[in-house]
Amino acid sequence: MTLPETVRLSPGPEDWAYTFGGRAPLTTVQPGSIVELTTEDCFGGKVRGVDDLPSRVCAFPYLNPVTGPIAVEGAEPGDVLAVHFVEIAPARDRGFSSTFPHFGALTATHQTAMLHPALEERVWVYDLDVAAGLCHFRARNSDFAVALPLDPMHGTVGVAPAAGEVLASITPGAHGGNLDTPEMRAGTTAYFGVNVDGALLAIGDGHARQGEGEVCGTAVEAAMRTTVIVDLVKGGGPAWPRLESDDHLISTGSARPLEDAFRISQHDLVGWTADLLGLDQLDAYQLVSQAGLAPAANVCDTNYTMAAKLPKSVLGRVRAYDGLHERLRATAAAYLRHR
Amino acid sequence: MTLPETVRLSPGPEDWAYTFGGRAPLTTVQPGSIVELTTEDCFGGKVRGVDDLPSRVCAFPYLNPVTGPIAVEGAEPGDVLAVHFVEIAPARDRGFSSTFPHFGALTATHQTAMLHPALEERVWVYDLDVAAGLCHFRARNSDFAVALPLDPMHGTVGVAPAAGEVLASITPGAHGGNLDTPEMRAGTTAYFGVNVDGALLAIGDGHARQGEGEVCGTAVEAAMRTTVIVDLVKGGGPAWPRLESDDHLISTGSARPLEDAFRISQHDLVGWTADLLGLDQLDAYQLVSQAGLAPAANVCDTNYTMAAKLPKSVLGRVRAYDGLHERLRATAAAYLRHR
Amino acid sequence: MTLPETVRLSPGPEDWAYTFGGRAPLTTVQPGSIVELTTEDCFGGKVRGVDDLPSRVCAFPYLNPVTGPIAVEGAEPGDVLAVHFVEIAPARDRGFSSTFPHFGALTATHQTAMLHPALEERVWVYDLDVAAGLCHFRARNSDFAVALPLDPMHGTVGVAPAAGEVLASITPGAHGGNLDTPEMRAGTTAYFGVNVDGALLAIGDGHARQGEGEVCGTAVEAAMRTTVIVDLVKGGGPAWPRLESDDHLISTGSARPLEDAFRISQHDLVGWTADLLGLDQLDAYQLVSQAGLAPAANVCDTNYTMAAKLPKSVLGRVRAYDGLHERLRATAAAYLRHR
Amino acid sequence: MTLPETVRLSPGPEDWAYTFGGRAPLTTVQPGSIVELTTEDCFGGKVRGVDDLPSRVCAFPYLNPVTGPIAVEGAEPGDVLAVHFVEIAPARDRGFSSTFPHFGALTATHQTAMLHPALEERVWVYDLDVAAGLCHFRARNSDFAVALPLDPMHGTVGVAPAAGEVLASITPGAHGGNLDTPEMRAGTTAYFGVNVDGALLAIGDGHARQGEGEVCGTAVEAAMRTTVIVDLVKGGGPAWPRLESDDHLISTGSARPLEDAFRISQHDLVGWTADLLGLDQLDAYQLVSQAGLAPAANVCDTNYTMAAKLPKSVLGRVRAYDGLHERLRATAAAYLRHR
Repeated sequence: MTLPETVRLSPGPEDWAYTFGGRAPLTTVQPGSIVELTTEDCFGGKVRGVDDLPSRVCAFPYLNPVTGPIAVEGAEPGDVLAVHFVEIAPARDRGFSSTFPHFGALTATHQTAMLHPALEERVWVYDLDVAAGLCHFRARNSDFAVALPLDPMHGTVGVAPAAGEVLASITPGAHGGNLDTPEMRAGTTAYFGVNVDGALLAIGDGHARQGEGEVCGTAVEAAMRTTVIVDLVKGGGPAWPRLESDDHLISTGSARPLEDAFRISQHDLVGWTADLLGLDQLDAYQLVSQAGLAPAANVCDTNYTMAAKLPKSVLGRVRAYDGLHERLRATAAAYLRHR
Repeated sequence: MTLPETVRLSPGPEDWAYTFGGRAPLTTVQPGSIVELTTEDCFGGKVRGVDDLPSRVCAFPYLNPVTGPIAVEGAEPGDVLAVHFVEIAPARDRGFSSTFPHFGALTATHQTAMLHPALEERVWVYDLDVAAGLCHFRARNSDFAVALPLDPMHGTVGVAPAAGEVLASITPGAHGGNLDTPEMRAGTTAYFGVNVDGALLAIGDGHARQGEGEVCGTAVEAAMRTTVIVDLVKGGGPAWPRLESDDHLISTGSARPLEDAFRISQHDLVGWTADLLGLDQLDAYQLVSQAGLAPAANVCDTNYTMAAKLPKSVLGRVRAYDGLHERLRATAAAYLRHR
Repeated sequence: MTLPETVRLSPGPEDWAYTFGGRAPLTTVQPGSIVELTTEDCFGGKVRGVDDLPSRVCAFPYLNPVTGPIAVEGAEPGDVLAVHFVEIAPARDRGFSSTFPHFGALTATHQTAMLHPALEERVWVYDLDVAAGLCHFRARNSDFAVALPLDPMHGTVGVAPAAGEVLASITPGAHGGNLDTPEMRAGTTAYFGVNVDGALLAIGDGHARQGEGEVCGTAVEAAMRTTVIVDLVKGGGPAWPRLESDDHLISTGSARPLEDAFRISQHDLVGWTADLLGLDQLDAYQLVSQAGLAPAANVCDTNYTMAAKLPKSVLGRVRAYDGLHERLRATAAAYLRHR
Repeated sequence: MTLPETVRLSPGPEDWAYTFGGRAPLTTVQPGSIVELTTEDCFGGKVRGVDDLPSRVCAFPYLNPVTGPIAVEGAEPGDVLAVHFVEIAPARDRGFSSTFPHFGALTATHQTAMLHPALEERVWVYDLDVAAGLCHFRARNSDFAVALPLDPMHGTVGVAPAAGEVLASITPGAHGGNLDTPEMRAGTTAYFGVNVDGALLAIGDGHARQGEGEVCGTAVEAAMRTTVIVDLVKGGGPAWPRLESDDHLISTGSARPLEDAFRISQHDLVGWTADLLGLDQLDAYQLVSQAGLAPAANVCDTNYTMAAKLPKSVLGRVRAYDGLHERLRATAAAYLRHR
């Protein structure tokens, strides 16, 4: 196997983007290219210890920088942009999490507006042990500590939105963005509907790990060294971001209230299943109802995100996008062997 | 080990209950008793083939019969009723699922009221192969068929509500009821806060399997032969139903919108975690945020239900309710060996 | 005009009800009867000054007592129970309002569960000046005071629920209950679908006045002396409570999220308008969309309630329920003249 | 009184904007200027009869054109932009309304995703009689007709969003936009927080009248000739759009679910009331709870909008923004007398 072209992208702070849309591409790549990139954490690297309260060291709206946009040659509205995550590795040996005033699932927010003062803002520092595959939680107000599995992923992956919109990088939606699903890990392929020429992919918000729902509003935030393969399918762009792992097809929906995020994700998965298996809509609805999984992605961002998962075992020999995920897995394996 | 008393309960249609609360107990058992019971499916056994449309063969409100209530000697308001599922076995070789007019997640309903006519009402018949551990999906409008893993569970388990309320068995809430979570399987212990003397446990709505969210509104509905151990902890009753498996602590929340179900479940899990590990609230919030799982249970019932799961691996040697789940597991194992 | 029979009902604390359903009637009346009744305030009369914090002086679930149930001779499931409010007069010269821990629209609640401690619990005392038609707000933490118009109404009016359910008096729903809409004032007729023989009407929760939304969770709570005319229409019971004033038809919906309450109320009003004017559904949808009003009733109770209002001017000579409201108005006027 | 400078703005289709943000100003005006402008209807003028189905004659995303942006000299982030509506007059003698596939409150949408096919798309034509102050509804499927009061207003009024975002003109939010509240009529002053230099005001989406909630998704859509006075207050920019009429202070909130729109609007009104009257937060919460109104604005757009209204009678002699509304009313009256 001849490996495709490899592009490197490691922007400095002056090149970080804070939106999807509204920016010229940092680089343009051919479909099929391997891109090795770096991403800063959601705090822009400014939280370095427990005393660095995000509301003090970060300045709105300079939160959640993303690397990109990356234009993909030939991508046109209506196409599918496939982004296969080859590797996601923490760039430093520490990750950080925090509460943030009026942000998170169990606090009043600017949208779920209430008369309560903000919860205490507190920072947690996690030591990341890549060799052992662990990240270390230490309580701030007691001696409790526990090691959790390292499970690196990207919270924010997306393309330029439709209709000329420019959306803050903290917002998840039909264009992707801040989906904050732990499914966006190495070995996964993400599919986005292309809205503008070049698609304009951007990636950021690495998490050393994340619970489902991202309840407190932040994960174990970490700068990342990440390798992706960027590919293109002409036509057939999905209405909402989809993911594919070795084991599952995954549809996402991002909306409020949370049942609408659920409905979007399930509706898309029902349609995807019907298409792949030649089922009528109700038969697909039934199959997804009995075979599917429905984990929360985030319940803290400006839109909430749900994932709808179908085990690929029910597909038999059928493959989504003509087996693109499997081909990208093979290319990724070759890349990892040969670098 | 001396096995506790075994009680058998197999009510006929004239004894089925359709509410939690408002009924005299069918039987009274001692804490620690084993109860072998049978449950009818949510259709009252009236759907036997694809032509038995539920809206024709079932009569509102005679849906979702439950077996019980079972009074537990000594149970008082504020106590914990523990229900350990020893075994849940389909009572017949077929299960049924269906759409139902204006019921389900991807249809207008009486609450999410819209001007659309109802979706087509359609019944699916599943052959249940207990020996192989499979249930067989067959599409109605094409030749597609696939076997899914059998994973028997109860959709409806709960106690009499607080405040003198009597709630339809299709409603999930703080009293339990129609939680419709696939976590309610054999090997799991459910904990309910007791609201009335005797607790008044009832169980029904067996599912041969269920996807997360119960998207179309029904699972693979099946009559069951079920064995539970019913136990009691004095005081400390949880505000919302909790479950415990060998691997996870699970809090549930049932409410609308779905984010409130999520918030309730996560709030309870944060409190439970804080109590067990001696963490302050924010440290527990952080730990649950990074280590937790958040699958949907149902997004179709009169309230929606979310589950919040914490891997017990983070607990170290700490055990919930002083190790009650582990003791019930041991008793269950003894029962299964000796019967 | 011969006035119909007048029944008096003034239960003591031992006869107050705290639920809809589950209670034998206090009295049975003929359709068309005038009922003079008294109601206690939502605090059971126990809040008498600023130091009487409700969470201390009231005991859950003994909140929001209602007077009733009143059985109506001949009422059967499917009928319409009409309740015309002739007069609602404060029984004492003071009303009370308060915040209450974890209750209200701008606070974390047990359902919108968050980690915030409760807001301060505070009581406000209003002097009620019936002659002047005023109630007097006085700030607790400053010298500000202002007189607001007296506008007496009942927050809680309803019948026994369907399906054998028994619901706490604080819950609004398809049976009515704690709708907390300021539209429930003298001069208004409320229509309820009958679910059980006798209908089992109960009334409580008088408000000297209430803002739309009942934002802080309580209105200007007041014991009332109230006169209603109770009447019956055979068949045609509405799915959700309806109201009629001299100027508007009003449909209500009670659900969560609030858009579902809105949808229910608008859906019912569209259907009602189509029926009355012989419009097809879409034409009625259009007319309601352009001519209708949509005020919040409450956004604090266990379900939220929205009202959908159509000016009766668009009806021409058409009258709802064959002019029942107008006939009840005439009877009420005669009663008021002759007593 | 010397009238301020009058600016005229009547852009052709090539200059219509479809977003807030992301566009250079069409003109720059001094604070205090009178602006006479024209706006096209939400269909871009392409619906001219019952056969012009919007989904056929309009092309996404070229919906809901707005006139602007108008830069205001000296406006800086954090300031208040005041927009006083002097006059809003239909530019043609017809208005149009329609259903639109998967858009509206009583239909499945792309966010409230369901398996239903779209409702019928249907257009209604309203004759507008400005002299009589009427607009004429005619049913499409029967002979029913009724005249409704003309009540011209703008659905879409706003400024460039914060954080570099560019939002479709159909989206309401903290920047204003498609609030779709009938309160935005002549005689009202709207206040927006300024996010970018020049504020970048744009106005569109005239309605000959609109019901609260804009239930079917469109109002009586009409091109308008509109006169506004644009003024500036340095500092003190509100977090969410506010309106002021002669009788009411009005806060708006735009979000989903609808209770969050309600919470935002009430939270803002509580804060505004506390500021104006020198009340502490809880006293203001209480006063708003008893004195306030809470009508729906729209429950159909990408965010829903609620209005929270406080009668200015409770303010005594206190005036918002130092009496700016009253001064703008006087200037408007002088303009109308002298033109």
